[in-house]
Amino acid sequence: MKIKYELIKKENNTNARYGILKTNHGEYELPMFMPVGTQATVKTLSPEEIKDMKCGIILSNTYHLWLRPGEDLVKKAGGLHKFMNYDGPILTDSGGFQVFSLAKNKKKDITEEGVHFKSHLDGKRLFLTPELSIEIQNKLDSDIAMSFDECPPYPVTYEYMKNSVDRTLRWAERGKKVHNNENQSLFGIVQGGEYEDLRKYSAEKTVEMDFDGYSIGGTSVGESKDTMYKMIDYAVKYLPKDKPRYLMGVGDPIDLIEGVIRGIDMFDCVLPTRLARHGNAFTRLGRINIKNLKYKEDFTCIDEHCDCYTCKNYTKAYVRHLITSDESFGARLLSIHNIRFLVKMMEEMRECIKNDTLLEYKNKFIKEYQNGKNN
Amino acid sequence: MKIKYELIKKENNTNARYGILKTNHGEYELPMFMPVGTQATVKTLSPEEIKDMKCGIILSNTYHLWLRPGEDLVKKAGGLHKFMNYDGPILTDSGGFQVFSLAKNKKKDITEEGVHFKSHLDGKRLFLTPELSIEIQNKLDSDIAMSFDECPPYPVTYEYMKNSVDRTLRWAERGKKVHNNENQSLFGIVQGGEYEDLRKYSAEKTVEMDFDGYSIGGTSVGESKDTMYKMIDYAVKYLPKDKPRYLMGVGDPIDLIEGVIRGIDMFDCVLPTRLARHGNAFTRLGRINIKNLKYKEDFTCIDEHCDCYTCKNYTKAYVRHLITSDESFGARLLSIHNIRFLVKMMEEMRECIKNDTLLEYKNKFIKEYQNGKNN
Repeated sequence: MKIKYELIKKENNTNARYGILKTNHGEYELPMFMPVGTQATVKTLSPEEIKDMKCGIILSNTYHLWLRPGEDLVKKAGGLHKFMNYDGPILTDSGGFQVFSLAKNKKKDITEEGVHFKSHLDGKRLFLTPELSIEIQNKLDSDIAMSFDECPPYPVTYEYMKNSVDRTLRWAERGKKVHNNENQSLFGIVQGGEYEDLRKYSAEKTVEMDFDGYSIGGTSVGESKDTMYKMIDYAVKYLPKDKPRYLMGVGDPIDLIEGVIRGIDMFDCVLPTRLARHGNAFTRLGRINIKNLKYKEDFTCIDEHCDCYTCKNYTKAYVRHLITSDESFGARLLSIHNIRFLVKMMEEMRECIKNDTLLEYKNKFIKEYQNGKNN
Repeated sequence: MKIKYELIKKENNTNARYGILKTNHGEYELPMFMPVGTQATVKTLSPEEIKDMKCGIILSNTYHLWLRPGEDLVKKAGGLHKFMNYDGPILTDSGGFQVFSLAKNKKKDITEEGVHFKSHLDGKRLFLTPELSIEIQNKLDSDIAMSFDECPPYPVTYEYMKNSVDRTLRWAERGKKVHNNENQSLFGIVQGGEYEDLRKYSAEKTVEMDFDGYSIGGTSVGESKDTMYKMIDYAVKYLPKDKPRYLMGVGDPIDLIEGVIRGIDMFDCVLPTRLARHGNAFTRLGRINIKNLKYKEDFTCIDEHCDCYTCKNYTKAYVRHLITSDESFGARLLSIHNIRFLVKMMEEMRECIKNDTLLEYKNKFIKEYQNGKNN
């Protein structure tokens, strides 16, 4: 079965939408934040912990799984869910973004056929095409697969972007043609950079192909926040109301609010887990680094408004001790906190959409987050 | 309250004993294996996971906590239990062993007063005395503290060992004098190397001081297995029946059996967690390294006889993928398996003691472990 999105309510004052996503692995409320399990594991965490945090979909990376352990092995294991022991829904990206960000020496050769590049692990020559990306994802058997796209750097010329958007459209068409997994949905990706007409063009042409959902790519690549928000606006208005909309690679708390307000349903980002490994934690009153000396004898929890396992059971002083002593349990505790922080924000925003109070939420949140005592 | 040991049954065919240890943090059956939480965390694991594995006492290292985060901070946090959120019993070692094994450049200067050495973290000059070790442990507020001893290398001359044993006895006396925590028990340590009469002397003199329990030190320092087993025999017969006996730093499965047979009640070792971080796993049919290519597409669990979380939910292929991809969830899954493996062995041995079948268990276990297909 393909996923099914049901729009329940649009907020009165913004474009935010509350809806239900039906998947083969449960029904979930949108908007939603999806933590990233790059290598078939959300770093440091168990599937049970992911569920305890009330996560729904998690994301895994096609490029990484292609290199290690290989899609054929995952298929033999019975698919990604069984391999990693996660029975919630999984979305796989296309590998396109990793080709551009991780490929060794950033040297790559983009041709009409696909992208030549080198493995970030051992420098081995690799060639990824739209067909291969989809075939890998078919074998991984994720709930949602993404079309293979080019994610251009920022900024590029209008000319470059126009050609890139056209190629991404041709790639989307090619990927769709080989997609062959009845239990897997396929999303199209809208590109176009900061160019309003190219976003419109990319969105309309992608929607014409009739995907199961649409994502907005090419954000968080160096552009300003205002530019990113415009990119969302330019694209969203051409996307159908009965399909989920996914903003890729965005996980900053304020960006989540701005995205939801603009009609985004799904977000993913490595930010909460990556920050955790470096000792950073979200709080309502700003982001903190637990390594800071001022937390050495702070026997309060990280965020008194948080209901996560970490905040219920551990002090800043203990988490600081773990992080400064290179104990991985520290990264685990902070990952739990940071992911739960974003997931809880989404819960709160869903309530606000139902009650048409999202702008109040935004103003209060931003005020506290930007001016709180932890800044 | 101090701990209280109740001997329930001695095995008919060996010196093995089944007993109950009453602590301020619950009652536990002995013999028992205690996992090590060096820096106030059993590496990669949560307190809940430790309990799920049916562990009882865990061990934490005085030397490490003295350096980081410091015993005063732990005291301010409300003691080690509260600091690390573990409400089971905790034993702290004296720091003696770490001084000898970790001190920077292995340079140390042993005087009657104490040991001068350098921090393994930053080379800072440090001075640890029997009194300071006990004072630190008093502040950590563990359930069981250890006397500060000298752990001599192997081999040393009779002369050296005799002097060392005498000094360790004087240090034990000094430590006992300053021990000042009514809720903390204090163990004496029997040294004497491979010299039968020195083990007897050390044991008798230590017992005269009347500690709450006795441990056997100076094993696993390079001697042969046979020599280690003799060291145990030499000491155990002079230890009182109504106090627990603890063999320090021993965690090899066969050594656990040999120790239990000789009348040991408690063991600790970093082996299960250290092996885990290097991809090694205990199985009934021998130790395996999960990185071995032959497990790449092995979709069975690590050990079909194991009841741990890892074996119930994950395949060798997945754990191998995590370990080879440097994902810390792999070390966590193997730590769970390895600790549970040893804890389950102790459960089985306790049953064997009740049924006087420990020698059959030993023979069957050793045969499978040494000749099984995983060797």
